[in-house]
Amino acid sequence: MRKFAEDRDWGRFHDPKSVLLALVGEVGELAELFQWLPAAEARDLAAAPPLRTRVGEEMADVLLYLVLLADVVGIDLGAAAQAKMDDSERRFPPGS
Amino acid sequence: MRKFAEDRDWGRFHDPKSVLLALVGEVGELAELFQWLPAAEARDLAAAPPLRTRVGEEMADVLLYLVLLADVVGIDLGAAAQAKMDDSERRFPPGS
Amino acid sequence: MRKFAEDRDWGRFHDPKSVLLALVGEVGELAELFQWLPAAEARDLAAAPPLRTRVGEEMADVLLYLVLLADVVGIDLGAAAQAKMDDSERRFPPGS
Amino acid sequence: MRKFAEDRDWGRFHDPKSVLLALVGEVGELAELFQWLPAAEARDLAAAPPLRTRVGEEMADVLLYLVLLADVVGIDLGAAAQAKMDDSERRFPPGS
Repeated sequence: MRKFAEDRDWGRFHDPKSVLLALVGEVGELAELFQWLPAAEARDLAAAPPLRTRVGEEMADVLLYLVLLADVVGIDLGAAAQAKMDDSERRFPPGS
Repeated sequence: MRKFAEDRDWGRFHDPKSVLLALVGEVGELAELFQWLPAAEARDLAAAPPLRTRVGEEMADVLLYLVLLADVVGIDLGAAAQAKMDDSERRFPPGS
Repeated sequence: MRKFAEDRDWGRFHDPKSVLLALVGEVGELAELFQWLPAAEARDLAAAPPLRTRVGEEMADVLLYLVLLADVVGIDLGAAAQAKMDDSERRFPPGS
Repeated sequence: MRKFAEDRDWGRFHDPKSVLLALVGEVGELAELFQWLPAAEARDLAAAPPLRTRVGEEMADVLLYLVLLADVVGIDLGAAAQAKMDDSERRFPPGS
């Protein structure tokens, strides 16, 4: 993502609040794919064509902007997620 | 909004979680209009054509889904907003 | 909202991208109230105490930031919503 | 994430629309950390204590719900992101 942005001289647009709004935009597109699906059928409908491809694309967009935001603010997203999982394991022991 | 939905037999889709996801979708579209605008110019750019029309449309969509959600769960949105303003007046006196 | 902000000298924080992120924050709080409710029970659960009060408060917060954003960019939110409804009436005639 | 949910018998809550609303909730919390930061200082403020830890935690939460959603609908998030990057490379050649 960083190289992709640098190669296009897009880095100057990538302040955190802008990237975060872009992330919100992609979350919105993901929400639009699910909004009117009946709750009980949403999983199967999203897992099968034709919706599956679009869901994958929008989820990818969310991930890519999240990774870009992590790069902009210098946060190791993988380490942060692992720390969060460890913390949740402690706070919510199995069976809780 | 209620009559509009009833006239089209769309009410059966309007459970709160679905309407809320639709609201998220519209907030996402609004975010997309602002995301790459320089912060210092965003106000003027959004206030003038051609962006002004699109910003108004997306804000209207957000409002309409918010009103629909209020109708679905039977909440008086105007009264709730007034109560919230009164509460904020108390909690943050002028000069705070 | 404008007077409330002016009385506290908060207007300098109210550029559109900041207000929009604040709106996103409130939409997130609203989503948190609904996220784990079973879809079929969400309406009744949200319409009754104790959830009803919190839903009203979060919806009010969303509305207030939407109104503030409209004020910041000089858009008549009521007129925009009416125009959008008129447009929807034309595009989706009853029975469609 | 899957094992974590299974160990706690939380999987029954994890229909896509619920997980998506949980993701929206975390994006909202992330937005709240950035909303009032001056745009020009947001990067430095978020990259340093005390904000850095909280930004990392909220970004982790967004990632974890995104991964959970991918698991629920059976989408390979890494492959989807790589495909999206390849597609963007093609559509926006360097210098565009």
